[in-house]
Amino acid sequence: MRPVLATIITIGDELLIGQTIDTNSAWMAQELNKIGVWVHRRVAIGDVWKDIWQSLDEESKLSEIILITGGLGPTADDITKPLLCQYFGGKLVVNEEALQNVKTIFEKLNRPLIERNLKQAEVPDVCTVLQNRRGTAPGMWFEKDGKIFVSMPGVPHEMKGMMLNDVLPALQQRFQLSPIVHRTLLTAGVGESFLAERIKDFESSLPSNIKLAYLPNYGMVKLRLSATGNDAKTIAELEALFDMLKQQVADVMVIDEDITLQEAVGRLLKSKNKTMATAESCTGGYISHLITSIRGSSNYFKGSVVSYDNEVKENLLHVSRQTLETTGAVSEETVIQMIKGTLQSLKTDYALATSGIMGPEGGTTEKPVGTVWVAVGNREKVRTHQFHFRFDRQRNIELTAHNALNMLRKLILES
Amino acid sequence: MRPVLATIITIGDELLIGQTIDTNSAWMAQELNKIGVWVHRRVAIGDVWKDIWQSLDEESKLSEIILITGGLGPTADDITKPLLCQYFGGKLVVNEEALQNVKTIFEKLNRPLIERNLKQAEVPDVCTVLQNRRGTAPGMWFEKDGKIFVSMPGVPHEMKGMMLNDVLPALQQRFQLSPIVHRTLLTAGVGESFLAERIKDFESSLPSNIKLAYLPNYGMVKLRLSATGNDAKTIAELEALFDMLKQQVADVMVIDEDITLQEAVGRLLKSKNKTMATAESCTGGYISHLITSIRGSSNYFKGSVVSYDNEVKENLLHVSRQTLETTGAVSEETVIQMIKGTLQSLKTDYALATSGIMGPEGGTTEKPVGTVWVAVGNREKVRTHQFHFRFDRQRNIELTAHNALNMLRKLILES
Repeated sequence: MRPVLATIITIGDELLIGQTIDTNSAWMAQELNKIGVWVHRRVAIGDVWKDIWQSLDEESKLSEIILITGGLGPTADDITKPLLCQYFGGKLVVNEEALQNVKTIFEKLNRPLIERNLKQAEVPDVCTVLQNRRGTAPGMWFEKDGKIFVSMPGVPHEMKGMMLNDVLPALQQRFQLSPIVHRTLLTAGVGESFLAERIKDFESSLPSNIKLAYLPNYGMVKLRLSATGNDAKTIAELEALFDMLKQQVADVMVIDEDITLQEAVGRLLKSKNKTMATAESCTGGYISHLITSIRGSSNYFKGSVVSYDNEVKENLLHVSRQTLETTGAVSEETVIQMIKGTLQSLKTDYALATSGIMGPEGGTTEKPVGTVWVAVGNREKVRTHQFHFRFDRQRNIELTAHNALNMLRKLILES
Repeated sequence: MRPVLATIITIGDELLIGQTIDTNSAWMAQELNKIGVWVHRRVAIGDVWKDIWQSLDEESKLSEIILITGGLGPTADDITKPLLCQYFGGKLVVNEEALQNVKTIFEKLNRPLIERNLKQAEVPDVCTVLQNRRGTAPGMWFEKDGKIFVSMPGVPHEMKGMMLNDVLPALQQRFQLSPIVHRTLLTAGVGESFLAERIKDFESSLPSNIKLAYLPNYGMVKLRLSATGNDAKTIAELEALFDMLKQQVADVMVIDEDITLQEAVGRLLKSKNKTMATAESCTGGYISHLITSIRGSSNYFKGSVVSYDNEVKENLLHVSRQTLETTGAVSEETVIQMIKGTLQSLKTDYALATSGIMGPEGGTTEKPVGTVWVAVGNREKVRTHQFHFRFDRQRNIELTAHNALNMLRKLILES
């Protein structure tokens, strides 16, 4: 059984001029996949009447489901609602429940309600209204020539609420869906082409209903097997193949689940009942942020000293002034002392330290931009490594963070 | 003169199943805008022969320029290059310069070169090759029926290098371009609909060549005026209107440039020759990360103590145990003491402190998830504010960070 095909249309100039990065579509695609809807096209267009109209025409030729986000705000640059009304041949009417919702929200916020906000409660009389439990703009479900069109607000948490509460359950009711099941593992330290070479026989022997994909990201590669169908036979076949894949990449595998490196480190610490802290110079708190973005991280993460300034390295992490003056802040000796200072001051089982030159300024002939020292340690041992990254500031920070977390993971594993 | 229209096509299943968030398109759109190319459509499709072929057909009907990213890696799930070869009626040949590039990169990495990598140097004989100075996969420039098609790797820093070095200059040479000029200001603390109400007369009086857009994001709204053309008359008109807009929102304006709040704070500190540090509990280093993502931030940012654990609040920030035990970590008294401890330990002019419950766990009846205390201060005064956010963990962190930075900005301004 082939999956049902969907297009996601996002409306708004902000996506086209690059002022906003679209994170909605990725989330939507993940959720749709889980129930067996395959997003085969994503289209972003501006607040332009003709372009929106044309996209509705075109995409409904290619997909059974068209999910639209954005263009429903209270301001004058939003033309989506009147367009949908005309496209589906309806007229705008006030929806009482949506109106009540707008009023309740403004009461809670203790703000006056203006005409513009009241208009949010107007919907075409030819749609099923999807109430917005997290904002003022209601969603709209239309059907035409056997195709389904759903319009939702572009604000991520409003869209997510509507998808989870209304859209996904309704789609499941409507179609005989065959879920797409993924099994993903994360590798680190080996490039895409070498992985491909290593598993080429495995790859060419895959049955037609199971696909392999390589997803490289900052020095790590995810390998994903995808099967269509969640019947016992398909799942058994998928699991067997996934086991085979795991064996072939065992030495470079970080974890056999679709989770991030920081989640993998967190689970390890939790399972061993250990704690950690970071001492960050060049990563500026980014590693700490990655770790604390995970719910429950307070169980194993105690904190961080972001020692951007050398004075902070001295005062809070007890790095000796002599070391800073002789070998410099970007040195093996400094990151080793940062580890010791962290273990002592933050009283954790493990620590991680970074010091480097992220650019674009600050490089020297001896230590060019991209020179980074990382250390990880516990009370018994400290491991260090020098990296030479050659990218922009943002990417250098990301790469340092991922490599440091992977060094820490290995140390915890062998302890 | 109307702008030249472009479509960005991104190829790869990872974008459709939601495993990767597309950040390339936003960057590309910004750069294209600067030279007067308007991205009116962005389309994401999978590694599917028919879908790619169809998109090339369709998009070349709608746009003069079709920029394609992704699908050029060394692994078997990449079918883009053979497809392009067939679409434009060529055959694959080895490009000597690209081959030399691949060899040089592998020598530098000290890795063996395998067949799969060598294939990266093959290109259709009907394209102009764009050498990749940051990776192994070359770009390709095709022309057909007066339309331009450029294929680039999906790896962000490789694509960016190719765009800046080759694609943008070549497009400028080719078309008579009329740049799209934007003037953007950032407001905080007032909703989109209220802004719209306030400036509705201004908005309705705008000439047809100048557009206003509202770009809301985490409690802040950007207002953007866009004009087509950079002739003296248009620019003067745009500037005059932008001045008018600034006056109308003066009380809620953060800055009259298209920069982030953290950049605005950094500039303020630099201009006053002052320093700052953060003490972060619930934001977990995110504010420190935002600040240190900006080049040159070491001039005014000394560091941060991420005191996720109460012990760290006591030991490094000198918050009294009594306070933590009586009023709790999420309290006004705690964030005030965090400010004092930070000013003392990190020796800065300004400090910012956060403590709250980000969720999904950890809430109580008295202090539900989303309860956050923020303090900002210098040696003379401390300002505090309690927030009640009602979103998910990620959004609560973002909102806390933005509100804290804005509180700090106001304090610096009035000092």
